[in-house]
Formats: sequence, C-alpha cells, structure tokens
Amino acid sequence: MAEGARRAGASAGIEVQTETLPFADGGEGTLDAICSAWGVQPQQVSTTDALGREVQARYAVHSVEGAVTAVIEAAEANGLPTVSDVPLQPLRATTYGVGALVSAAVEAGCEEVLLCIGGSATTDGGAGLLQALGARLLDSSGEQIGPGGGALADLSRIDTEDLDPRVRGLRWRIACDVINPLLGPEGAAAVFGPQKGADPQDVEELDAALGDFADVLAAQTGQDVRETPGMGAAGGLPMALVSLFDAEIAPGGELVAEVLGVQQVVTEAEIVLTGEGRLDSQSLGGKVVDTVRRLTPDQTPVFVLAGAVQISAAELDAAGLTAALSIARGPETLEELSAEAEARISSAAEQLIRTYLSGRAAAG
Amino acid sequence: MAEGARRAGASAGIEVQTETLPFADGGEGTLDAICSAWGVQPQQVSTTDALGREVQARYAVHSVEGAVTAVIEAAEANGLPTVSDVPLQPLRATTYGVGALVSAAVEAGCEEVLLCIGGSATTDGGAGLLQALGARLLDSSGEQIGPGGGALADLSRIDTEDLDPRVRGLRWRIACDVINPLLGPEGAAAVFGPQKGADPQDVEELDAALGDFADVLAAQTGQDVRETPGMGAAGGLPMALVSLFDAEIAPGGELVAEVLGVQQVVTEAEIVLTGEGRLDSQSLGGKVVDTVRRLTPDQTPVFVLAGAVQISAAELDAAGLTAALSIARGPETLEELSAEAEARISSAAEQLIRTYLSGRAAAG
Repeated sequence: MAEGARRAGASAGIEVQTETLPFADGGEGTLDAICSAWGVQPQQVSTTDALGREVQARYAVHSVEGAVTAVIEAAEANGLPTVSDVPLQPLRATTYGVGALVSAAVEAGCEEVLLCIGGSATTDGGAGLLQALGARLLDSSGEQIGPGGGALADLSRIDTEDLDPRVRGLRWRIACDVINPLLGPEGAAAVFGPQKGADPQDVEELDAALGDFADVLAAQTGQDVRETPGMGAAGGLPMALVSLFDAEIAPGGELVAEVLGVQQVVTEAEIVLTGEGRLDSQSLGGKVVDTVRRLTPDQTPVFVLAGAVQISAAELDAAGLTAALSIARGPETLEELSAEAEARISSAAEQLIRTYLSGRAAAG
Repeated sequence: MAEGARRAGASAGIEVQTETLPFADGGEGTLDAICSAWGVQPQQVSTTDALGREVQARYAVHSVEGAVTAVIEAAEANGLPTVSDVPLQPLRATTYGVGALVSAAVEAGCEEVLLCIGGSATTDGGAGLLQALGARLLDSSGEQIGPGGGALADLSRIDTEDLDPRVRGLRWRIACDVINPLLGPEGAAAVFGPQKGADPQDVEELDAALGDFADVLAAQTGQDVRETPGMGAAGGLPMALVSLFDAEIAPGGELVAEVLGVQQVVTEAEIVLTGEGRLDSQSLGGKVVDTVRRLTPDQTPVFVLAGAVQISAAELDAAGLTAALSIARGPETLEELSAEAEARISSAAEQLIRTYLSGRAAAG
C-alpha cells in the first residue's frame, strides 16, 4: 500500500509520506504481526501441547509506553493445529502448556500480558494454566486433580499459596471477540466443544465440570463470573484469569491496536488505508477494519483495499468508511489474486491515491 | 457511471451533476451509440447484402451544428455477419448494398455522411457502391462489369454521367482506424482478404484487380490514392470515395466525437469518466479512451473504468489518464463480470467518486 501511495504521489509531483503498521485482530497471526510492528524476534519456549507432549511455542516482548509487555498466542501451546496428528481428547486437553509461556514472560520482566486465546483445543476453564503457574487444584481427598476439563468434576478446592507472586502482579488483558457465557447452550462446551472433538456426552460432562470449577472459584473469590460475556471463549480459559487475577477482556483488535500505538498513527494521518480479505458486513464487527475506523478521527477518510468487496455503499456509509476497492484487476481466480496479492495491493493503492490526489488538486 | 457518481455525491452531501454521452470508436455498435446519443430511432432501408440478397439495413440522421448528417455503418449492408449463413465469395462480394443507404440519406436531405466501414465482407474498392449511386463501370466493350472485386480486372472506364449530383455534393467522412495502403503485402487483399474467405489465389487476383481499379481512377481523376494510408481498409472501400468525392478519412473515435459534440461536454466537466472492455496499451491508439483524453482539457482528470485493467501506472501517466479501476469486486469469472456489468460499473464509479470527493473535501 505504502509503495503504491508513494508512486501515486510521484506521478502527481507530490511527496506522499507513509507510515505502515502491521495489524491483526487477536486471531491467528497476531503474534507475527506484532513482532513485525515492534521489530522484534519472538522468544522460543519449550513447553507442552494440549495433550502434554513437548512443543516449541513463542511469545513476544517489548516495552510499550514504559511497561514491559508480553504478547502470547495461547494456541501456540494449546491450539488445535498442534494436536491435529492424533485423535482429539476434549476431556483431557489442558491449557497447562500456556503456563510456560507466561512464566517465561514473567522471568523476562514482563508486567503486562496480552493473551490471544483463539484456536484452542481445550475446554478446561483455564485450570491447566493455573496449575502451571503454581496453583494446586485439589479433590476432596487433597490430591491434585488430573489434566483437562473432565477432571474438574473432581475439584474441591484451589490452593493458591504457591502461586508465583509476580503472576498476581501482572496486568492481564485477554483478546476475546465472542460474548458467550461459560455454561449452557451458548457456553464453552456446547458451542465450541464439538469442533474440539466433544460428542454430546462429552459436551454434557464438560459443561457440568466447568460449572463445578465456577462454583469453587466463586466460593473462594466471592465473585461469580460464569455469566460474564466472553467467559465461554476458548473453553472457558478467561474464567480462571478473570476470577483470580482480575484479567480484563476486550476485543482483540482493540487490544492489539493499543499495544501497537495505532491510535497515535491514525490521528496524525491525512488519510488511512486498511485491508481485509473479504470485506462484508461481518468485517464491521470488531475486526481490523472496524477497529481502524473507530480509532481514526471522524473527519479523516478511511479506505479499504480488499480481495473481495461484498458490501453496499449504504453499509460503507453506516460504518464511516470512505470507499472500498477490490485488488482484482479484471476477471481473475482467487488463486491468481492470491499469487500476486502484493503487487495487486500496491497497484490498487496507487490508483486509489491517484484518484484522491486528483480530488485534492481540484479543490486546491 | 452517472448513477454511481450521483450516489457518491449524495453520501457526501454534494449534488453531483452528470452528463452522459454514449460513445463509440467507429466499429460495430457505433450506429446504436450515436442513435442513443442523438435520441433518434434509426431509419430502415431495404437493400442487398454483399452477395446481392435482400437485407434490411439502418442509418441514422440528425442535424449536427446546422448540417443534416447521416451515420451509416456500411457493414449493415456489406458485413460479414449478414453473409455468415453461406460460403464466403471474396471475389464476388460487393459494396453495392451500401449505396441504398447513401441514397436514402440523400433523399432525406443529408448533406454530410459519416461512414463506418469496419466488419466488411467485401474487397471491391468501393466499386459496388459507385454503381449503386449511378456510376457505370464498363469493360473494354462498353458493358457493365459484374459485381465484386474480381470483376475489376475487366474494368476499362468509369462513366459518372448518371451519378446523382447530390451525392457529389455530400461531405463524406470515413471512420478508419487502419493505415494499410490499398495494395501489396500490407494491402486490402493480403491482410484482410483471408478473413473474408480469400485463399492465396484469390488474394493475388483481388490485389491485381484493385490495382486495375486504381489505375482507372487515377487516369480519370488525375490523382492516384493507392498509397494513401487507410485505402486498404474495408476491402479498399475508401478508394472510390476519396478518388471521386474527396472523402476525408479519420480515426473513428475522432469522427464520432465530432458528430456527438463530445468536446463541448468534456470541456465543461470537472472530471471525465470513460470506459473500456480491457484497458491495455492498445486502448491508447485511437480508441475511445484515447479520444476522450485527447478532447478533454489537459488539467481535467480523466478516469477509466474497465472490465480488466492491464496497463501500468507509467502508461497511464504517459497517456494523461488520472486513474483506472477494474469493475471486478473480487475473484470473479468473465461471465460473472459481464452478467452484472451495469451494477458493477455503477458501483465502481461510486467508489471512484467517493474517493475523489474525499480528496476534494480534504483540500477544501
């Protein structure tokens, strides 16, 4: 985009200044985008996957407005792709491996954690992560319970005495784009369980076990979060962190924008260009385009370049978007578009800015 | 385009005023475009096709800057499509049927003829047309020669005594986008003969016969036009008209623009939008886009909407075009693009004008 814009400026005899910022919405690829924006290499951590097998996972660390901040994509440890080689075990899958990432970030001096939770294979309410950070989840005879959401049916008490105190001191922010509650027909087990391998019987067991976990947490903390929107995301992972560490949950795009300083960049811009694979009405619910528009001052034009534009002008108006162009240059297949996406994006940006500058010249 | 532009204005709270002008480059469809622009119905004339069979043909008549002007697409009478149901007869195909169109225009009081000549099935140097208008093409024994280019080998003399004098008084303009001379390897028979069914032997005969025709015309008029660029177009049709009636030949886009008053419209416009099926480097040689750009004042932006954009920004700059957008909204087949071309053109124009107006607002 920036190259296209600068070329358009050169054609018009105007020096177009650009600032580029990789952006993401908290989903897959967020870690890479943030590393690119920060200009840092991700840290490698040896940990375990959702089934307890050794796996390499990554996190990023950088100082943001004075606070050392870690970005963790939980799915690097507890994600579905890492366990796609074996039959899914929805009752046993655990967030334990995410703990090694958090511990490594704490060791590295992080004071804040931005946790992206999409793509998980787990439905354990974050229990495994608590265990990895030093909490002991005990059954009625005082023994530690086993891994995974199913074992939460045995939970009687949580012993947090050995929790790493630095973990308590962390500012936790969880990127979460769904508003499902923990339990019931809209809950973690019923809605997201099946894609993690849960059959109807498993869903019932997991829903009950998460309820037991919520009971214990509510009894110990004095606050019951099971109805809080978002607790049903990622197998209930947010519940443990919200209950014990007052974690905030917010849309991913917003949190990512915060750690990347998007607001400052768009506030100083004359116009803003952003992108989307397919721009449709869903793109306007918390995704990148929507977030960029919301952070940008109202009077500043925001343009969207997309692989496909499937949105009406009325929807653009309602969303406050100035215009949206496809990067397609004619009748082309998705494969053709994808294969030369970079050149097409650059070219579409160039045509857009040529048009914009001609309007500016007409008035000037 | 106009609808899209007005919608874009409405979104921005600006009343966008549009003036639309169907345009064409002198090729197939020119008559329809001109009728649409003039707001007239074409006149029907009963005449004959290239093989002498009865056919209905059309012409348009309108007063242009005080002169009653006819637009004739010769191919309505002598075109390849009208004889596609039978084997091609390159030696016999005649422009005779075009004469009925000219005569009808003369009867209707026309003082000027714009003759579009593309798509012909004939290679007779315009001999048939002369015959239809009253000239007698005689062999050495004083008999009229037969129809078609092949018979020109028998031509000895042209008797113009019975020519309709009103035909001589016409201002003839021929839309011609090729620069081929009449004869030789780049001539009418060699280059365009084969697509009209001429085998190598036919090409040789036709080339020689056209040469004979040129000899006779040169001897009688005192001017030899066989080397004049464009004489090889449409089977040499321009030769007869240039030799005997001082017909002008010019690129079709230019002549069409003239009869439509394009220059006045684009001179008054703040910006101009035009279109093309596939915008590539060929589009910039006398086609609509090129003509529009040439007629538009330098400082006025000209935008192109195209089915496919296959042109670099450097080529746009060189051609003085502001920007070019494809009407594609994502990965789509040619069939999908074509089926909803109108909606896509309107939508592309809307996005373009939204972008342009945002630039204008920024400066304003």
